[in-house]
Amino acid sequence: MDFKMDWERPERTGLPEAVFCLNKSADMIDRIILSAKSADRRLFLTRLTPLTFSQLSEKSRNHLEYHNLSATALLPGKGESDASALAGCGSVALLTGGSADLPWAWEAKRTLQFLGADGDIIADIGVAGLWRLLEQLPGLKAYDVLIVFAGLEGTLPTVLGGLVPQPIIAVPVSGGYGVSNEGTTALHSMLSSCAPGISVVNIDNGFGAACAAWRILRQLSNRRQG
Amino acid sequence: MDFKMDWERPERTGLPEAVFCLNKSADMIDRIILSAKSADRRLFLTRLTPLTFSQLSEKSRNHLEYHNLSATALLPGKGESDASALAGCGSVALLTGGSADLPWAWEAKRTLQFLGADGDIIADIGVAGLWRLLEQLPGLKAYDVLIVFAGLEGTLPTVLGGLVPQPIIAVPVSGGYGVSNEGTTALHSMLSSCAPGISVVNIDNGFGAACAAWRILRQLSNRRQG
Amino acid sequence: MDFKMDWERPERTGLPEAVFCLNKSADMIDRIILSAKSADRRLFLTRLTPLTFSQLSEKSRNHLEYHNLSATALLPGKGESDASALAGCGSVALLTGGSADLPWAWEAKRTLQFLGADGDIIADIGVAGLWRLLEQLPGLKAYDVLIVFAGLEGTLPTVLGGLVPQPIIAVPVSGGYGVSNEGTTALHSMLSSCAPGISVVNIDNGFGAACAAWRILRQLSNRRQG
Amino acid sequence: MDFKMDWERPERTGLPEAVFCLNKSADMIDRIILSAKSADRRLFLTRLTPLTFSQLSEKSRNHLEYHNLSATALLPGKGESDASALAGCGSVALLTGGSADLPWAWEAKRTLQFLGADGDIIADIGVAGLWRLLEQLPGLKAYDVLIVFAGLEGTLPTVLGGLVPQPIIAVPVSGGYGVSNEGTTALHSMLSSCAPGISVVNIDNGFGAACAAWRILRQLSNRRQG
Amino acid sequence: MDFKMDWERPERTGLPEAVFCLNKSADMIDRIILSAKSADRRLFLTRLTPLTFSQLSEKSRNHLEYHNLSATALLPGKGESDASALAGCGSVALLTGGSADLPWAWEAKRTLQFLGADGDIIADIGVAGLWRLLEQLPGLKAYDVLIVFAGLEGTLPTVLGGLVPQPIIAVPVSGGYGVSNEGTTALHSMLSSCAPGISVVNIDNGFGAACAAWRILRQLSNRRQG
Amino acid sequence: MDFKMDWERPERTGLPEAVFCLNKSADMIDRIILSAKSADRRLFLTRLTPLTFSQLSEKSRNHLEYHNLSATALLPGKGESDASALAGCGSVALLTGGSADLPWAWEAKRTLQFLGADGDIIADIGVAGLWRLLEQLPGLKAYDVLIVFAGLEGTLPTVLGGLVPQPIIAVPVSGGYGVSNEGTTALHSMLSSCAPGISVVNIDNGFGAACAAWRILRQLSNRRQG
Amino acid sequence: MDFKMDWERPERTGLPEAVFCLNKSADMIDRIILSAKSADRRLFLTRLTPLTFSQLSEKSRNHLEYHNLSATALLPGKGESDASALAGCGSVALLTGGSADLPWAWEAKRTLQFLGADGDIIADIGVAGLWRLLEQLPGLKAYDVLIVFAGLEGTLPTVLGGLVPQPIIAVPVSGGYGVSNEGTTALHSMLSSCAPGISVVNIDNGFGAACAAWRILRQLSNRRQG
Amino acid sequence: MDFKMDWERPERTGLPEAVFCLNKSADMIDRIILSAKSADRRLFLTRLTPLTFSQLSEKSRNHLEYHNLSATALLPGKGESDASALAGCGSVALLTGGSADLPWAWEAKRTLQFLGADGDIIADIGVAGLWRLLEQLPGLKAYDVLIVFAGLEGTLPTVLGGLVPQPIIAVPVSGGYGVSNEGTTALHSMLSSCAPGISVVNIDNGFGAACAAWRILRQLSNRRQG
Repeated sequence: MDFKMDWERPERTGLPEAVFCLNKSADMIDRIILSAKSADRRLFLTRLTPLTFSQLSEKSRNHLEYHNLSATALLPGKGESDASALAGCGSVALLTGGSADLPWAWEAKRTLQFLGADGDIIADIGVAGLWRLLEQLPGLKAYDVLIVFAGLEGTLPTVLGGLVPQPIIAVPVSGGYGVSNEGTTALHSMLSSCAPGISVVNIDNGFGAACAAWRILRQLSNRRQG
Repeated sequence: MDFKMDWERPERTGLPEAVFCLNKSADMIDRIILSAKSADRRLFLTRLTPLTFSQLSEKSRNHLEYHNLSATALLPGKGESDASALAGCGSVALLTGGSADLPWAWEAKRTLQFLGADGDIIADIGVAGLWRLLEQLPGLKAYDVLIVFAGLEGTLPTVLGGLVPQPIIAVPVSGGYGVSNEGTTALHSMLSSCAPGISVVNIDNGFGAACAAWRILRQLSNRRQG
Repeated sequence: MDFKMDWERPERTGLPEAVFCLNKSADMIDRIILSAKSADRRLFLTRLTPLTFSQLSEKSRNHLEYHNLSATALLPGKGESDASALAGCGSVALLTGGSADLPWAWEAKRTLQFLGADGDIIADIGVAGLWRLLEQLPGLKAYDVLIVFAGLEGTLPTVLGGLVPQPIIAVPVSGGYGVSNEGTTALHSMLSSCAPGISVVNIDNGFGAACAAWRILRQLSNRRQG
Repeated sequence: MDFKMDWERPERTGLPEAVFCLNKSADMIDRIILSAKSADRRLFLTRLTPLTFSQLSEKSRNHLEYHNLSATALLPGKGESDASALAGCGSVALLTGGSADLPWAWEAKRTLQFLGADGDIIADIGVAGLWRLLEQLPGLKAYDVLIVFAGLEGTLPTVLGGLVPQPIIAVPVSGGYGVSNEGTTALHSMLSSCAPGISVVNIDNGFGAACAAWRILRQLSNRRQG
Repeated sequence: MDFKMDWERPERTGLPEAVFCLNKSADMIDRIILSAKSADRRLFLTRLTPLTFSQLSEKSRNHLEYHNLSATALLPGKGESDASALAGCGSVALLTGGSADLPWAWEAKRTLQFLGADGDIIADIGVAGLWRLLEQLPGLKAYDVLIVFAGLEGTLPTVLGGLVPQPIIAVPVSGGYGVSNEGTTALHSMLSSCAPGISVVNIDNGFGAACAAWRILRQLSNRRQG
Repeated sequence: MDFKMDWERPERTGLPEAVFCLNKSADMIDRIILSAKSADRRLFLTRLTPLTFSQLSEKSRNHLEYHNLSATALLPGKGESDASALAGCGSVALLTGGSADLPWAWEAKRTLQFLGADGDIIADIGVAGLWRLLEQLPGLKAYDVLIVFAGLEGTLPTVLGGLVPQPIIAVPVSGGYGVSNEGTTALHSMLSSCAPGISVVNIDNGFGAACAAWRILRQLSNRRQG
Repeated sequence: MDFKMDWERPERTGLPEAVFCLNKSADMIDRIILSAKSADRRLFLTRLTPLTFSQLSEKSRNHLEYHNLSATALLPGKGESDASALAGCGSVALLTGGSADLPWAWEAKRTLQFLGADGDIIADIGVAGLWRLLEQLPGLKAYDVLIVFAGLEGTLPTVLGGLVPQPIIAVPVSGGYGVSNEGTTALHSMLSSCAPGISVVNIDNGFGAACAAWRILRQLSNRRQG
Repeated sequence: MDFKMDWERPERTGLPEAVFCLNKSADMIDRIILSAKSADRRLFLTRLTPLTFSQLSEKSRNHLEYHNLSATALLPGKGESDASALAGCGSVALLTGGSADLPWAWEAKRTLQFLGADGDIIADIGVAGLWRLLEQLPGLKAYDVLIVFAGLEGTLPTVLGGLVPQPIIAVPVSGGYGVSNEGTTALHSMLSSCAPGISVVNIDNGFGAACAAWRILRQLSNRRQG
């Protein structure tokens, strides 16, 4: 019963390995952290619930920079300087429809930080109060990539898609009840959007959206230098 | 193999019987028409496709006022004057997101006409071009009931629900492809809308939406007179 | 991590903001309550479970009028007099099939009260004992809007739809087991009802049904005054 | 590429073999008919569409008693007298909600006839016009088994289940559109009915319902003689 | 917040009222029990989990005959003698595929006892060990109705349906994992069975299956006396 | 618009390339055939319907050995001798529940022939007539692999799985109606079977089942020689 | 029955209006084309099947540059020069798993051309023959955005996602049979991919993927100039 | 409330009985263990969670060899020597994509050991880091059967299927979130794989996969001896 990290992934794709903690025991996560620490590897952990975090060894907990709302943790290590290479070469806005979206917006923000970038959270601009969104429009022009979080009927990316020209990565968010179907309605709504050029990630996948944004930022950075 | 009409329904609910033709043979429909004709009953037929209409007996076809786009037909008869009693005591707007919604908007308009009311179709105000919708807002104030048709991600009723105070009856429309799922995504989107107080009917159910609007108009009419 | 209320919504749609507590932490709800209190805003909270309510700060709890069965709370404040403007200009009956529907009927009743209206709960008239329903028919004539709650196979709105002419807003209720599918069977049953003019809201959405009824009452009130 | 009939089934279960023609070529059906004919076996064929019937050999067509609406055919043969042994020892009512149910009610009636029993079709008593059903109640007392066909929201068996004490076999019927989901909503509605003791067969399965009724009639017959 | 029992149902359908406890609070159940007790009504309670039972008032608990495995309880009262009128006029076998089916088989047995009949449980004859089933075949001839419980792929009723002529009521059972889909696979398997004349009730619905059997027994009893 | 065959696959996995024709135009298939012919490659084509076959160029049609029922075609070519190396080193039985399964059983048989093996079709042993299956049991001992085809409720592999020790590859078959759900019920039934050690392929995937059997035969052949 | 184009969309989002022809009659499309022509507007039409194209007026057909495989048409007009502004400032690779993906890859290529960019199709590199993919890896480094088309199990984007650092837009493709579920399995597979940073569009949505790529190219172009 | 073991199954199929503990009470499992012990029968228990294990009687716990990660237990007994007869006549590799797959890989390994065989676990070779898989390829040649575990998008068996010729039994694994749908996406991905000859078992069914592998090993063993 062992594990095998893909330490070479950054060399291939530039994306350092992250540990998805949802189906892992505290014991398994502990061993991964200590293995990374002893190799002086940076590591990012997602879906590390407060409960599981509290079950880690004290040693592991001390190594980690834990963030409660997003259930993410960062293990500092080698490669820090490379990671920050992207800072300043592209900007990301993280737009949320309601407060249920915040944990995933923070998961995305923390992921971007781990990848040497960052993102600005612009909260509570859901379309039920359209003016909140229209007020933000001028400010959105400054961003290179928009990550848009929405639950329930998932309208926000569709409305934005008809108003702004930048890349839009939509993140359907679970929550709600009845035919919200744990985020599936928002997902389907975003995928069948009448606004062109929206791309979508899995339900609640703030991490994946941040990685998709990072791929764009990296290309922007290459272009600038190229 | 016989049929039995519910001719007494108008006395109970005020809604005259309508014939849903989707699963009926031309022969069966013919017999219903002639039976209604000989009793001098008004009758409304929905989902009477051009093909099935062409297969009816010439006699039946001559009795009917057929409307192609909405696949509806009207058989004039006794009760006409009662039916028009509602005219003028309430108004309905039929808003559509795109041109795929038109057949169902027309099914609703024709149903309202049969029930002694009417509706104004305001087409192509889907949210991908938000300004088209915002332009219409002042004019919408004049209406008592809004029936809103939308396919794909079904956003239009949600955006409207945050902008206007009237009753909104949302009609999800099939069409599209992939996860549009024949209108199911629009249906679920409308049902889990973040805008409060939207009620919904079955996919492509222009007839049902018109009847729901009629129930409100009738109550408005009673109040006015009461 | 902030929130942004849509305090201007009543001006647009007449519906004051409500707080959906299902996916919010006690801490977040506390901050919303205190923010509204300091602005002297009326506020309505739904899906505030007894557990979450007990986790609120004592200060918040003292501000709220909490109702256990419906899991709703009311924060009194400015706008009270406006809200009661609707009282007496229209009446709502809340019909339930069985006792599992009561929490949602009460959610609707409390919402109507918050919006300046009210509703009468008429319980346990499910169609398995048809006579209970038929007994109520004469009394139902007095109401302007019927909100009908039903779980399992969701038959009640269909039977009523063939018997009465008023607006009917159907609320499918979760519960049951097996193919009840957490209310989806009742939802689909109501949407594909053979009775014309029934409109439907999301599963367990007593709040939304009350808002839909309110939109009708408001139009009745306008008409009367107009 | 051969076939192998279960000619011994009647000895085990009393139910003679029937041929389900939906996925069979005309050529295959022809060979089965001629094989049965040469063995002087009675045979019942279901889902034999008019198109496929017209593609059979003239010889086969001449052997069959074909019934268009139910898409069934009967090949007379040995065992006729046994089959009629049940006649008179139990009665079946076939109740339908609307005219879309008739083909399947006739499939059931024809199956019962093949099995030596029969059934009375009582059409168009759907609950949208409740009085049509209540009128029939006294007459229903005479029947031993009720087979109830209903599409759309499938309410009819539920209402009946609270009114009569006999065995009720419910047959969900496809048709409709949107969330009728090709009969699935009626099926789920019947299975989760609040009325106790309704049992259900597959969508559009008139044949299976008749066989289930036959199993009860046979037991009644045994008891009477026992 | 009141309730309204359908005390007159036995007069209509012969089936006394039963209380489905799944979505009811201990307080609500307590009040129903005491109401029935004071009216000297017999009452049957299903889905009364050991936990909820333990939360009832001591007074209520003392009135009830509780059965743990089936989560049912019986409140004795008036009508006892009528109920036993069916005893001896028909017999029911309750066949189970595996031990996960036992709670529901016992729910059915207890229901039959409440209705004045009874049933014999024949356990663990699932088709993975076909000989266990074949051994039981001769003994099954003595029964008037077979209720067959099966989970997972739900094969047992299909195999029996080809072997015996009696009425078969199939009960799909939840449990299993993966594509067992909480009993849905067993349900669909039973409904689309290649064996003719099997009828089906909702997943885990031992109560409904017993009521369906009772409807047959009652008819057998009538015939015998008739 | 070009294509690129994986001609080297046999070297890696031993399985020569096959062409799945379902979504390909006659023109595209023509070009693949002629490209393979000019390279003297053997080729196997599946899902080549009679209609599409008739639309191929005469030249292509002349090169092919077409088989109507299975909708497969074989293009002879180099590698023939290698392919027959497996003949005699293992045997496959192709068991079908009913005649709707035959096209897929033949697809499997033709695939096995292409791969240098063969299979014996044993038809119509569905469990509704259990004796047909029990009769075949002794003969089944001779086979190394059983491929079992079943539609509707898909019971056959489950019953066999409790009776024989060989590898069983189950193929769910579409067809039927209602909750047969185009083969999904058979698929789920097979996957959740209570009989241990059954593995399953996609609905109607006779080709895949034959390839899975071939992988076993190849291993048997290696062992024998090893 | 009118239509209302959103001619101002390019000013807002840079994306000119496109006409989705799937649910539109030839007559409606004709009128849109002539309206655009008379206003000298460039227009792009998708899902214009050969059949519908042949039903357009000769005049319309003459105005259009039609492309058969992708079912797209281009109406030249004003704005051409703007459109080509993007050419050369970013490159897109269109990778396909199999030949069933080609129509959608061409829909994307044609869309990119309309938007002033272009894309290179690299076909038939599905993972069943992994070497075909590995061979292409070095060449892929030159591209700024990868659009990856895959049907069946949709593996290709996942494997690429672990190998290359650029933005990856995945397009699930319908086709296949059984549990391919018309592209839903590929869609779900891509959304739940273990490779980070893949974003996804609707099934068969080559147009949307091209628009998403265009949003990235536009940002690259801005950066370069900025 | 009794149980009936199928002790004779090994004689028919060679597979000794196993006890699936998921839906059984500790009391029921205790009685099965003691019954087997007193008959000196070997027994294998699956899905025996640590919690349920801790609730067994001390006597039962002492008899069992319990394995925590796989939630399996072995009761030694008669038949041990027969069981080991297979050892050495075939080898199985258990390949996992990620660490969430380990419990099921161990369930399979433990099952193989119970059946007299064994398996080597090769962990963490998921395709997001393709090189980990390619490194293992040469070593895989030594195995007779590959059991491949994968969750999320379930790609691993597809990639392997194009690279190796042995029998591949794919096990979809639950876990993940959103459209992973508790393993359904991996299941559908494996079933619709473009790589030929992969067969699949139920989600998380390590036991079934091991039994399927055992059926192949047994046939290999027969061949060798034959």
